[in-house]
Amino acid sequence: MKSILAEVVTIGDEILYGQITDTNTQWMSAELSKIGIRTVRKSSVGDTEAQILQILKEAESRADVILITGGLGPTKDDITKKTLANYFGVGMVLNKDALANVTEIFARRGFELTELNRQQAMVPTNCTCIVNKAGTAPGMWFEHKGKIFVSMPGVPYEMKWIMENWVLEHLSAFFQTPAIYHKNIRTIDIGESFLAEQIEAWEDALPSHIRLAYLPSMGQVKLRLTATGASINELEAEVQQQVNTLLTIIPEYVYGYDEDELEIVIGKLLLDQNLTLSTAESCTGGYVAHTITKVPGSSRYYTGGMITYSNAMKINQLDVIPDTLTQHGAVSEETVRQMAENVRKKLNTDIGISTSGIAGPDGGTPDKPVGTIWIAYADKDKTVTKKLQLFRDRLLNIQYTTLAVLNLLRQNLPASVKTVTP
Amino acid sequence: MKSILAEVVTIGDEILYGQITDTNTQWMSAELSKIGIRTVRKSSVGDTEAQILQILKEAESRADVILITGGLGPTKDDITKKTLANYFGVGMVLNKDALANVTEIFARRGFELTELNRQQAMVPTNCTCIVNKAGTAPGMWFEHKGKIFVSMPGVPYEMKWIMENWVLEHLSAFFQTPAIYHKNIRTIDIGESFLAEQIEAWEDALPSHIRLAYLPSMGQVKLRLTATGASINELEAEVQQQVNTLLTIIPEYVYGYDEDELEIVIGKLLLDQNLTLSTAESCTGGYVAHTITKVPGSSRYYTGGMITYSNAMKINQLDVIPDTLTQHGAVSEETVRQMAENVRKKLNTDIGISTSGIAGPDGGTPDKPVGTIWIAYADKDKTVTKKLQLFRDRLLNIQYTTLAVLNLLRQNLPASVKTVTP
Repeated sequence: MKSILAEVVTIGDEILYGQITDTNTQWMSAELSKIGIRTVRKSSVGDTEAQILQILKEAESRADVILITGGLGPTKDDITKKTLANYFGVGMVLNKDALANVTEIFARRGFELTELNRQQAMVPTNCTCIVNKAGTAPGMWFEHKGKIFVSMPGVPYEMKWIMENWVLEHLSAFFQTPAIYHKNIRTIDIGESFLAEQIEAWEDALPSHIRLAYLPSMGQVKLRLTATGASINELEAEVQQQVNTLLTIIPEYVYGYDEDELEIVIGKLLLDQNLTLSTAESCTGGYVAHTITKVPGSSRYYTGGMITYSNAMKINQLDVIPDTLTQHGAVSEETVRQMAENVRKKLNTDIGISTSGIAGPDGGTPDKPVGTIWIAYADKDKTVTKKLQLFRDRLLNIQYTTLAVLNLLRQNLPASVKTVTP
Repeated sequence: MKSILAEVVTIGDEILYGQITDTNTQWMSAELSKIGIRTVRKSSVGDTEAQILQILKEAESRADVILITGGLGPTKDDITKKTLANYFGVGMVLNKDALANVTEIFARRGFELTELNRQQAMVPTNCTCIVNKAGTAPGMWFEHKGKIFVSMPGVPYEMKWIMENWVLEHLSAFFQTPAIYHKNIRTIDIGESFLAEQIEAWEDALPSHIRLAYLPSMGQVKLRLTATGASINELEAEVQQQVNTLLTIIPEYVYGYDEDELEIVIGKLLLDQNLTLSTAESCTGGYVAHTITKVPGSSRYYTGGMITYSNAMKINQLDVIPDTLTQHGAVSEETVRQMAENVRKKLNTDIGISTSGIAGPDGGTPDKPVGTIWIAYADKDKTVTKKLQLFRDRLLNIQYTTLAVLNLLRQNLPASVKTVTP
C-alpha cells in the first residue's frame, strides 16, 4: 500500500524568532501517525506572503496532505487566509456558520462584534469551512488536485479541537487509510536495552502487521504496539492477546496503559481499595504532593502533607527524633523511615510516603554526594525504604525522586490492589 | 546594513514523527536573534540522504547561515556527517582532537573505546572540527561559497555547549555583526495592551537603534529592549537610561530583569533582609512550595510548609477554627487568613503565605464556581488577602495561583526590600 505523506507548516514570526515554544507540530505528526499518515517534513516560515506561497508550492510538490497552522488572527499581520486564496486563485466569501459562531462567542463574553472579528468569517471560496467551537477563527479544508490542504489557528487547543473533531476523521475517509489500532504499555524501573533483551523473543514473534516502538523518557519506557489491518475490532483483540503474553514476561515493570500516567494509576488503585495517602517531603519540596494533586479528584484519597525542609520542622511538626538527625543526618534511612511512619500517623492516613536527599547543586559531602536521596513507604504492616543515587541537575533530581517514590508506593500497596489489567 | 539570514535544520525521524519535543530550535533562533541574525525558515527532515541533500540545497539558496542538528550518533541510522561530505564533494578524515576527546570521555566512564565510537572522530575534510566537551560527537563548521554551515548533535545540552562556546562567537566574527545589547524587563499583574497604553509615550520616544518587543506569558509580560550599535558599553549605558525612565512610569509592575524568575527575585529579597518563609497550601497542592524550592539554596530562607488538602488537616495541623470552615467554607477569606497566620506561627517564620480554592474541573458551586481562589500573606504586622477568579484548566489554575501568591508576597514585603534595582 502506498504511504500517505504529510507536511506540517507553521506560520508566524513568533515561532521563527524563538519567542514561543512550538508544541503543535509534535502533537500533529503523532496524531497523523496514528491514522497511518507519515510526516516527511516540518517547516516554520514567517508572516510574509512570499514565504507562505513558497512553502505551499514546495509542500504540494512533496506531500499528499499539507497541514498549516497560524496566521489566522484578526490583526493585519495575520495573512494566511488571503495568501491561501491567492495560491488557489480564488476570491473570498462570508461563511454564515463561521459568522454565527464568532457572533455567539462574542455574545457569550458580553462583547459587540467588531468589523475585524466579522472578517474572521471570510474564507476562500474553494474551501470547506470547519466551524471552530474552541475559538473565533474557522478551520479551512481544501481539496486541490487530489491533495488536501488544511489551515488551522495556531492556538494549541483550537488546533486540537479542529483536528480531533473534524480533520483526522476526514483525512482517514478521503485517503481510505486502513484501520490502525494503537496500544501503549507503560513500564517503569527498567532501562530500554534491558527491556529489549527481556522481551526479545516476544518481539521477534510479533506478526508483521503489528509493529513495536520503544518510547523512552526519564525512568520510564513506553512500548507502543501499532496494528494495521481491515477491522479495528479484530486488531484490538489481536493486540490484547499480545499484551497478555507480554504481561506474563515482565509483570513487575508494567504499571499502566495509554494515557495513564503513574500518578493517575496510583489514584485509581487507592480509590479502588478505599485507601488514603499522606506525604512528608524534604528534598522534593512539594513536587510529590503537586504530582499527586494535579490529578482531578485526588482529594478523595490524598489528605495532605508536610514539607519539612528544615531540621526544626522535621522535629517539631513530624516528631523526627533529634538524635536521629544528629547521628545519621537528615539524608538517611532512619530519617525517611520516621518521616513516612509519622506523617501517616499524624495525618491519620493508611499510607505515608517520604523523601530526603541532596538535590543539588550544592550541599554534597564525600560520604553523601549530590544526588544521594532516601525515600520511604509506610503502611500499618510495614515500612520500606530505598536509596537512590542520582546524577542529574536539581530539577531533574526532584522529578526523578518523585517518580521513584510513587513507584515505591505502587509496588508496596497490598497485593490485592497491584493486579494490572489492561 | 544587510540582514544576515539563518535557517535552522533538524534531522531525525523522532522529531518528524512526533516522538520527542523539539526545544532546540526555539533556543537557537533566540540566540541567533541576540547577535543580530534573523531566522527565516526552520525545517525538520528525516534520516535519509535524499531528504538531507534536498534541504541543504534549499537552505543554501535562501540563507547565509545554516545550523543543522541531529544525526551524529554512532549508529548506522545517523548519516548526517557522510551526507555533508557528499554535499560538499569531499572525503572523510580522522580528527585527532576529536579522537582524544571521545577517548577521554570513555576512559572517564571506565569503558573501552569501540570502533563505532572511534568513527565519531571522523569528519569531512573541509570542516573546522569543534571539539565537544559535553559529548562524544564533535561539532563541524563549514565555510562554503561565503556561507556558513554548522552541524551539531541534537542532544540539547551538547548543542548548547557548542553554540555558547564556539559557534555564536565565530558567527559574530565571520559576519562582523554589529554590537547588540539586550535587556529584559519583567513585569507582572498587568496585561499586554494595558501595559502598552501606559508606556506608549516612552516607547514612541525610543531612539531608532533601540527596539522594544512585548513577550507575554501567563500573568506576565517581558519587555525586551534590543540596542544595536558600535560599542557594547555605550549601548548598555543607553539602555540603562531607558530602563531608569521606564521605572518611573510603571514601578509597581516591574519585579526583575533578564533571567530572574519571580521565585528567584523573591529568594534574593528574603535573603537580603534575613527573612524566613513558610507556606500553607490547599488548592495548589504543593506547587507553591515546589516553585520556591526549585531555586538552589532556597533552604536558607524557606523553612517548610503544609499541604492541608482535607478540612481535618486544616483543623488538626494548622489550627483553622472548625466554625470558620462550617460558616465560610474552606474556600474563603477567613480560612486563608488563618492558614497564613497560623503556618507562620507554627513554623516560626517571619512570613506565611497560603492558598485555598477550587482548581477544577469539579467542585464548583453557583456561589463559588471553579476558579474561585483565595490567597493570603501574613507577617508580624499585617495580613493581606486577595480573591482570584480564574477560568483556566486545573493545572493552569494551580500555576496561575502560585504566581499570584508569590507576587502578593513580593508586594507586601517590608518597603525597604521592595526597591527594584536593574
